[in-house]
Formats: sequence, structure tokens, C-alpha cells
Amino acid sequence: MVGLNAFLLLSTAIAILAFVCAGWLYSWVNKQPTKNQRIQEVSGYIRRGAAAFLKKEYRVLARFAGIVAILILLFLPAPIWKGSFLPNLVMAIAYLAGTAFSALAGKIGIEVATIANAKTAEAAQKGIRQSFLSGFRGGAVMGMAVVGSSLLGVTLIYWITGDTTTLLGFSFGASSLALFAKAGGGIFTKTADIAADLTGKVELGIPEDDPRNPAVIADNVGDNVGDVAGMGADLFDSNVASMAAALVMAAAIDKAVGGTVNVAMVFSYAAIGLLASIIGVATARMGKNDNPTFALNSSTYVTTGIYAVLTALATVAFGFEWRIWGASAVGLLVGVIIGIATDYFTDDRRLPVQRTAKASEKGPALTVLSGVAYGFVSVLPALVGIGISALISYKLCDPLGDGYALFGISMAAVGMLSIVGMIISNDAYGPIVDNARGLAEMGGLGDEVLEITDTLDSAGNTVKAITKGFAIGAAGLTVISLLGAFISEVNEAAVALNLVEAGQKYLSGFDLINPTVFFGMLVGAAIPAVFSAMLILGVDRNTQRMVEEIHRQFDTIPGLREGKEGVVPEYEKCIEIATLGSIQELIPAGLAGILATIVVGFIGGVTAIGGYLAGNIISGLLLALFMSNTGGLWDNSKKYIESGQHGGKGSDAHKAAVIGDTVGDPFKDTAGPSINTQITVVSLVSSLMSSIFLMFSLIR
Amino acid sequence: MVGLNAFLLLSTAIAILAFVCAGWLYSWVNKQPTKNQRIQEVSGYIRRGAAAFLKKEYRVLARFAGIVAILILLFLPAPIWKGSFLPNLVMAIAYLAGTAFSALAGKIGIEVATIANAKTAEAAQKGIRQSFLSGFRGGAVMGMAVVGSSLLGVTLIYWITGDTTTLLGFSFGASSLALFAKAGGGIFTKTADIAADLTGKVELGIPEDDPRNPAVIADNVGDNVGDVAGMGADLFDSNVASMAAALVMAAAIDKAVGGTVNVAMVFSYAAIGLLASIIGVATARMGKNDNPTFALNSSTYVTTGIYAVLTALATVAFGFEWRIWGASAVGLLVGVIIGIATDYFTDDRRLPVQRTAKASEKGPALTVLSGVAYGFVSVLPALVGIGISALISYKLCDPLGDGYALFGISMAAVGMLSIVGMIISNDAYGPIVDNARGLAEMGGLGDEVLEITDTLDSAGNTVKAITKGFAIGAAGLTVISLLGAFISEVNEAAVALNLVEAGQKYLSGFDLINPTVFFGMLVGAAIPAVFSAMLILGVDRNTQRMVEEIHRQFDTIPGLREGKEGVVPEYEKCIEIATLGSIQELIPAGLAGILATIVVGFIGGVTAIGGYLAGNIISGLLLALFMSNTGGLWDNSKKYIESGQHGGKGSDAHKAAVIGDTVGDPFKDTAGPSINTQITVVSLVSSLMSSIFLMFSLIR
Repeated sequence: MVGLNAFLLLSTAIAILAFVCAGWLYSWVNKQPTKNQRIQEVSGYIRRGAAAFLKKEYRVLARFAGIVAILILLFLPAPIWKGSFLPNLVMAIAYLAGTAFSALAGKIGIEVATIANAKTAEAAQKGIRQSFLSGFRGGAVMGMAVVGSSLLGVTLIYWITGDTTTLLGFSFGASSLALFAKAGGGIFTKTADIAADLTGKVELGIPEDDPRNPAVIADNVGDNVGDVAGMGADLFDSNVASMAAALVMAAAIDKAVGGTVNVAMVFSYAAIGLLASIIGVATARMGKNDNPTFALNSSTYVTTGIYAVLTALATVAFGFEWRIWGASAVGLLVGVIIGIATDYFTDDRRLPVQRTAKASEKGPALTVLSGVAYGFVSVLPALVGIGISALISYKLCDPLGDGYALFGISMAAVGMLSIVGMIISNDAYGPIVDNARGLAEMGGLGDEVLEITDTLDSAGNTVKAITKGFAIGAAGLTVISLLGAFISEVNEAAVALNLVEAGQKYLSGFDLINPTVFFGMLVGAAIPAVFSAMLILGVDRNTQRMVEEIHRQFDTIPGLREGKEGVVPEYEKCIEIATLGSIQELIPAGLAGILATIVVGFIGGVTAIGGYLAGNIISGLLLALFMSNTGGLWDNSKKYIESGQHGGKGSDAHKAAVIGDTVGDPFKDTAGPSINTQITVVSLVSSLMSSIFLMFSLIR
Repeated sequence: MVGLNAFLLLSTAIAILAFVCAGWLYSWVNKQPTKNQRIQEVSGYIRRGAAAFLKKEYRVLARFAGIVAILILLFLPAPIWKGSFLPNLVMAIAYLAGTAFSALAGKIGIEVATIANAKTAEAAQKGIRQSFLSGFRGGAVMGMAVVGSSLLGVTLIYWITGDTTTLLGFSFGASSLALFAKAGGGIFTKTADIAADLTGKVELGIPEDDPRNPAVIADNVGDNVGDVAGMGADLFDSNVASMAAALVMAAAIDKAVGGTVNVAMVFSYAAIGLLASIIGVATARMGKNDNPTFALNSSTYVTTGIYAVLTALATVAFGFEWRIWGASAVGLLVGVIIGIATDYFTDDRRLPVQRTAKASEKGPALTVLSGVAYGFVSVLPALVGIGISALISYKLCDPLGDGYALFGISMAAVGMLSIVGMIISNDAYGPIVDNARGLAEMGGLGDEVLEITDTLDSAGNTVKAITKGFAIGAAGLTVISLLGAFISEVNEAAVALNLVEAGQKYLSGFDLINPTVFFGMLVGAAIPAVFSAMLILGVDRNTQRMVEEIHRQFDTIPGLREGKEGVVPEYEKCIEIATLGSIQELIPAGLAGILATIVVGFIGGVTAIGGYLAGNIISGLLLALFMSNTGGLWDNSKKYIESGQHGGKGSDAHKAAVIGDTVGDPFKDTAGPSINTQITVVSLVSSLMSSIFLMFSLIR
């Protein structure tokens, strides 16, 4: 039998391999030629804008993390005056490590993405295959960095402390940073996007990415800080949380039955997932007659295949339980099914997008209504899929003994997220080629090149739908297993507080019919809605500020409106508005969920929190799926009309579809994907505060 | 001690008193003078259109009810081949009685509303106070008829059978009819409304209610069949369900401890609620310097006061438990708080409506986004309110003994619905004065009269927000207590099936952490979204059909477009399209929830159903509140701009607000209020089928 240390070593080695791979990809991207002066210049603007935003954002978040670290030192896992100094210190350090790893991954992603955009634009002159590779490999640097650092972080924390509660602290660090990064980046990107569209396309009738528009650089910066850095932080968080939840369960079982086989299994599966992603990334390229969508999707499927085979081999080799392998395979399979179902609702060759485009002929109200209706339907396959995979993985693993059932669910989440490296690579590819399109336009590379970048961009949108399905599905399963982790934490804390004797359980579940649970469920269900509203209103307010600034520039800078040679708008003013506004708006939104958790915990104790988490998951998944899918559907309806259907560009149907797309922008890029992180943060806060809630609550 | 029969007699007497009151109000309305030829004629069109729709709808529903009755005869409460003939027969009859009572109440409401509209229009020539009284008393006929028949039906069924499961059958009859009536009426009314607006206001620029528009009569018919008949069926159903749930609990306690005091209490409280509503209705009038909103709201508050005092007196007189009185008072109080909170989000003197109006200056996308965001926030007070009232009423009554806690929650729902007679009167007032406005326009009664009817109409909209808060809150509490009723039914059925011994419990609750429960929750959460989508798409499709018909008429009827003297459009064609379309669309939507329940039950058994009901409640309340409130907010933002703000009528902001209002139409009048009924139906189906699910399910 191989010892646990060997697995930890293997994980560390593969994590380092991922960094090596990222380094190689980075240097490959960096070696690609750049000649166009104008593209260099604009790309420089974007890079500096993104760096400036990140610096400001991280400075605010560092202060926030510092405060939280002090609170952790004082209160978590138990109040410091109860003699819990060392555990609290370790927890605070783990928390800070989580935030630091997450910030680092975002920073790396931004660095490479803001180089890769220009490379991709210029490579498009040589043809689509070369351009695709620049975009994809730029994204893959981010993918490798995120997954490498999450695996490395989790492995090191576990190796050093041997304690899974500390892992939850690390995970909380990652997710609290992700919450703000996703919300802040999401507000930034949509502020700039909507303001640029409203003033440029709608008011002046100038094309997207026209350099006269003062918001155009901010828009491109937004793609990077929202979709690259924010999304990276989000998936870093999901990945860490799924591993942490699985390890909490595995360690509890191992402790009860002796041995380390289940912990070893989690590490080996996570490491294999990363390895599979490395292979998938390294082999991804467009064949001669392929389209980019096919290339992206097929490398995703290759990765899932490699994962399934390698984990099966590991199961044989190390004598892991086949049933748990089954749970992980079910997670992966359901992830694919959810992805395909999501794709159905956002693909322009399918009925929902086409019907919405047709409804647009009758005006924007019907565009919105059709989109909302199909968006509502689209939640069904994903929710049923998550439910069924939880059910099957539970039933598969339940016969193995006490604790295995919930461990099975957490392994389904690990399975679903195994290919997260591939997912991030595909996701980060999107904003890179989107930027490349803008650079090609501003650099005057001609229509042929624009057509190539348009094709690459649209593939990015389509693939995003599938990967988002994976991300939301995995978050759902992870949070279900975090509910199990919460119960373990409560029971451990109850023993420590002498509320029950050692070996006894303070609580074994949450009864729906208990009104304290029900109260928690109702409040928990409201939180994702309120959180989404705060983000949407944040975008709304910030957009109005930026529109005013753009009007001011058009009114006061002579020759700007007419596009006089040599007249340049004050791009940095718009970047500043987006930056300051998003930082100002993200704090209350980010805190809302955390504070609500604390209030509910102090009122209804751990019982109410159980319901609260369930309500939060249910409503969070519902709204996240609804908003992400509806936004994607509207975006593609607009693109479908632009491809010449229902009157094409400039028709009434197109105008209606543009309005739908604008509504969808903060749905799909600000609120929808942030909910994921919100539900994870709330779960982790609950687990970490379980002692406190046991000690102080209005209702027991 | 007074015997139970005395209470049953009292209930019957007060129910009959309500009918007497309805008869008196009807004859009062009917006696109001009518002179204007044109108004008579148009009102006749509306009356015949509504009658024709109701006839067609009831014919379809009669067939549906017949099929369900046969299924009940065969399977419910237990399969007929297990010797359960008489109980099944009684259940089938109770079911049919529920549908018949509900249909009758709708029919009465339509009869009087389609007379009162013309009376109200003509009375406006004599001043606002007289006109208000016509509108209000017309609505009150409906209120009295609905509450009288629900109390009478429940009392008689209980008196005859003495069995509470049969009451659930009666309630299921009421709610299955309500589901279709609300969905069908909602599709009808919004089809006509949107089609009339799109072709009239938007394309041709002719005013609302212009007689040239072929859809204008269908629009007025729609107000009656959607808002009067549909809403009446909906509240009939809620009222019956809340009484039935309370009686199930009360009877179980009485059976265990001996006596009939709790059943007597339910009847006495329900009867007092009706009495309070009768007094409130009889005394409602506009003071000299009042506005109609004040008159409507103050009579609502008077009713709540009378209820609280009379129930306290009854509690003293008959020795009921004070704690249960407390639960009922908490329900009433929280209902008022939810109403006020809802009002905040839809009142044009408050920030949300005004901000949304301001955002409309920047185009329809921001109108939609602001509305959605405030709509999301608006769910919080109601969900927290429902949660807190459930928690308080549970904690209040729990010390009384086994079973009292859930009985307390059901009595909170009874308290919240005690003033349902007043709520329906206020609600039915809305479409009557809306119709009156149209008739005043078509009858050429002049601007002064139009101004009066406009004022009355806008009061109707404002009051609706508050009453909707009550209705949704009460549905939430009722369904929570129906979850308790479901457990009772399962335990009884389990004893009957020899799964457990008599006196033992098959199940005592549903553990959130059980994945079968979680699976049910996720599926249950998806259903209200899918149901809403089907209704919205139904409106969408049907509107497109009607728009085509309107275009055909304008193109082929010479002189219609120009408004040539004597040229009349073919109104009945549009009524026919709305009728056939809505009947065709309502069946699949209505069946979706019922079928999903059956599928989940056969897969996961009663355990999954427990989770399914919880998920359904959570997501149903969330979406119902969101859609109702957002729709009301958009409607009032449009009206606020029309009052002269942000450029007034015809401005860009107004155009944007009209688009928001159109999106909101099916939100607030089709999908939102139908969800109430959907969650009730699903709960009742689950309770009734508990035996079947115990016998046949894939997972135990």
C-alpha cells in the first residue's frame, strides 16, 4: 500500500508541472510576433488600465482581508479567550494564504491575457488556426495557473497542518476574495460595456470598438478584469471548495475507520484531473477543416475521457473503492449533460434563440419576455441533473458505511470539476479573442482579419455556455456537500463546548418541517435575489456616471465627435470611473450575504443556518442558471440577427435584440456568475462560525 | 361549553348572511341608472364576450374535472380494488363540489362585474364618490360570494362527512379549477391587452380603448375573465385550502386529546373573518375629502381591527387557547406588514418607482434592469415576514402540546386570510373601474369623467399591491401547514397499509441532508419557473396570432383605419382568438406541475415529495413575489411618467416605460398570481396521493 505522503508528493509534483506548463505557454505566446504600432499602443492602454484596476482593487481587498484575519484570530474556530490561540493563528494564516493564492492566480491571468490579445489579433493575419492557438494558449496559462495553485495550496495546507477545518479557512480566503473580485470585475466590465454601447452604437451610430468612443478602452479592460481575473478567482474558489469539502468528509471517515485511503483518493483524483487538463491543453489545436467551437469542445471531451480512464486505473492500482469512482464519473457525466442542455438554450441553431430573434420583430418587450421564458425553462435540466447526480452518488456510496454517502456527493463535485483547468482555459480564451477583435478594428487590420476574429469570438460565446453549466453544477454539488461539512463542524464544536459527550451527535440533520429551519430557508432564498439586485443596481448607477462623462467629453473636446485626425478621447477618465465605481459598489454587495448569515445564525442558531444554506443553494442555483442562460440567449439572438436574419443589422428586430442583449449583460456577466461564489462563501462562513452560533443564539 | 354543531350552524348562518349581503349589493348596483346608448351597447359586447369565454372554458374544465373525478374514484384515497369504494365515491363527490363551488363564484363575479362597469362609468358623471361606490359594491358582490361559498362548502362537507381528508378533496377541486381559471384568464387578458397596445398605441398611435381597434373589446373582456373570475377562483382556493389545512391539524389534535374545541375554533375564527368583511364592506364609502385609495385601505384596516377584537371576544367566551389567538393575530399583523412593504416597491411616491422612471430616460434596457433589480429586493420583506410569522406562531403554540405547533402556523394563515372578503372586493373593484374607464372613453362622456375614472383606476392599482401581498403571504403559510398535513396523511396511510403499527409514525419529518429530499427540492424549485415560462410563452404565441388578425382587419375592412363613421371592426374575431388560444395554452401549463409531482413521487416516494414541496414553496414564493411586484412597479413607473415626469407622454422615457409595462403585464397578471395556485395544487395532489406513493416508488 502506498502511503499518503506519496500522494501528497504526487499532487505537489503535478501542481508544479502545471506551473511549468503555464510558463512554457506564456513564453510561447510572448514569442509570437507583433508589428502593428497602433495595436501595441492600444494594447498598452488596456494592460495599464487593467493593472491599475487590479492594484486598486487588491489594495481595498487587502484591507478587508486584514480585518477578517484579525476577526478570525479573535473568534475562529473558537474565541481566543477560551484558550484557542494557536488554532486561530493557523486559521488566520490559512485564510490569508487563500486570498493570496487567489489574487496571484488572477494577476497571472491578467498579465498574459493582456499580451495574448494583441498577439491573437496580429496572428489572425496569418489565418484562423494560428490566431486560435494564440488565444487558446493565452487562456490556458490562466487555466494552468489557477488549477496548479489551488491544488498546490490545498496540498501544502493539508500536509503542514493535517487538519481539514484549516482547509475550510483556506477555502474561505479564496472564496471571499473571489466574491469581491467577481462582483467588482463584473460591475467594471458591464459598466464600460453598456456605457460604450449606449453612447456609441445607440446614440452616435458608430461601430463597436470605434476609437472615438472614450469608453472603448475601459470596455476592453473590463473584459480582462471581469472575465479573466474575476472568473479565474471564481473557479479557483470552486475548485478549492470542492476539494476542501471532499477532504473534510474523507478525513472524518478515515479517522473513524483508521487509515488514510480516502484522503489519498481525493488527492489522487484531483491530481489526475489536473494532469488530464494539462494533456488536453497541450494537445488542443484546430484541425485543417475544423471550426474553433469544435476544437474547444473536443479538447474538453478528450480531457474528460482521460480523466475517467486514469482515475479508473488509479482505483485499480491503489485499491480505492469502485463505488466512489462511480460517483465521480457520474458527476463528470452529468456535467457534460448539463453543458449540452445549457448549450441548447443558447445556441443560435436551436429553437430558443431563433424564436427569441423572431419575437424581436414585434419589439423589445417580446424579446425580453421570450428570453425570460426560455431562461426559466433552462433551469430545469440543470437542477434535475444536479439532483440526480447527488442522488445516484449518494446511493452508490451509502453501502460503503457511515459517512460515505455525503463523501460520494462531494466526489461527484470533484469529478465535475476535474476538468476545471480546461474550463478556465476555454473561458479565458473568450475575453482574449474579444479583445483581439477590438484591437484588429482599432489597428485597421481589414475586414478579412475582422471576420476571423469574429468567428473566434463567437466560438468563445458558445463554449462559455457549456463551461458555465459545469461551473454552476459543480458549485451546486459542492455546496450540498458543504452542508454535510457544516454538520460535521457543528458536531465537533458541540463536543468541544461540552454540549454533548464525545462520540455523540449534537445534530444529525435538518427537518424541513421545523419552522426554525423553514425560517432559515425563506431568508436564505431571498439572499441571492438581493445580492443580484445590488450588483445590477451597481452597474446601473455606475453606467449612468460613465455615460455622463462620455457626453462631457463629446461636448467639450473639439473634433472628437467628428473623428478629427489626432484627436484622442481621455480614455483613462472612463477607466477611473469604472474602477472607483465598481470598488465602491462591490463592498456592500459582498457583505450582504455574509452579514445575513451572521444575523440568521444569531437568531436561529445552527438549526436556522441549516435551512438558510438549503434555501440559499436552491434559490442561488435557480437564479444563477436563469440569469446566465438568459443573458447568453439574448446575446446570441442579437448575433443571429446580425448574421442577416429578420432584417439583419439596423432593422427593428436588431434594435429590439440589442435591448435584450443589454439587459442580459449584467445578468450573465455580473450577477449570474457571482451567485456561485456567494453561495460558497455563505456555506464556509457558516461552517467556520458553527461554534459561535452554538454559543450565542436567540433560539436554540 | 357550546357544542360543535352550534359553531357549524353559526358558520352556515354567516355564510348565508354573506349571500344575502351579496344579493343586496347586486340589486343596489343593478338599480343604478343607465342612459347612454353607446355604453349599453359596448357593455353588452363585453358581457357576451365574457360569458362566451366562461362557457367554453367551463366546458373544457368540466371534461377535465370529470376525468379527475373518475381517477379519484379509482385510486384515491386508496385504490378501489383494495375495497375502498365508499371513501373514494365521497372523495370524488367532494372534488366535484369543490370545482362547482369555485366555478359558481367565478360566474357570479363576472355577472355583476359586467353590469357594474357601465354603472360606474355613468355614475362618474355625478361625481367620484358615487362612481366609487358603484365600482366597490360591484366588486364586493364577488367578495361576498367567494367567501360565503367557501365557508359554506367547507362547513357542509365537514358537517356531512366529519372527515378532513375529504376536505382536502374539496380543496383540490377548488384549486385545480383555480389553476386553470387563473392561467386561462391570465393568458386571455394579457393576449388582448398586449395585442391592443402593440397595434393601437405603438403602431397606429391611437389612444387606449379607441373603438377602431378590433382588440379593444377583447381587452375589456380580459379584465373580467382574468382579474375577476380568475382572481376569484384563486382566492376561493386559498381560502378553502387554509381552512382545510387548519381543520386537518385541529381534528388530529381533537382526536388525540378528545373533544372538539380546536375544530370549533377554526370554524368560529373563519366565520368571524367573514362577518368582519361583511361589516367592512357595508361601511366602506369615500368621505368628502378622501381619495379612493384611502377609502379602500381604511376599510381594509377597519376589517382587520374588527377581526382581532371579535376573535379575542370569542376566545374568552368559548375558552379557546389564547396562544392560538396570538398565532392568528400574528398572521394578520404580518399580512399588513407584507402589504405595506409591497406597497413601498410599487408606489409612485417611493424611490423604486421613481428611480425606474428616471432610468427610463436612458432607454428601455435600463427600465427593465432597474425594475428587475428592485423586484428582486422586494422579495426580502415578504419572505422574511412569512418566515418570522411561521416561527412565532409555531413557538407560541408549541407549548400547548403535540400537534399544536403546526396548527398554530395554519391558524396564522387563517388569520392572514380572515379579511379575504375585503381583499377580493378591493381586487374586483380594479377591473370594474378599468372597464368603466374604457366605457367612458367609448361612450364619449368627456374629459372630466375620464379624469374621475382614471383616479379610480389608479387607486385600484395601488390597492392591488397590498392585497397581493396578503394573498401570497397567506398562500405561503397555508402551504407550509399543508406540508404538515402531508405528513399526517402519510402516517395515516402507512398505518392503513400495515407499513407501521397503529399509533406509530412512518415518518416525522424530512431531513434536508437526505439526497432524496434534496433531489425533490431541486426539481420542486424548477417547477414554478417552468410553469411561469409556459404561461408567458402562451401569452407570447397567442398575442402574435391576435396581432395578425388585427392587421388583417385593418388591411381588409375599408375605412376602419381612418375611423369612418359606421365602420365597426369584427370584435368577436379577437375575442375568439383570445378564447381558443388561452384554452389551448392553459392545459399543458396546468398539467405540468401535477405531472411533475406524480413523476417525483413515483421516483423518490414520499421522502422526495417532502423535499419537492419545500423546493416548490421556496421557489414559488420567490418568483411570485418577484413577478407580481416587478410588474406593478413597471406599470406605475409608466403612469408616473404619464403624469408629466421625465418628459411625460410621448417622450423617450415614456416609450421605454411602456416597454417595461408590457414586459410586466404577463409577469403580474398571468404568471405571478398563478404560481400561488400552482403550489397549492401540488401540495394537495401530494397529500391525496400519499397512499399511492407509499405503495409504488422506485426509491423508498
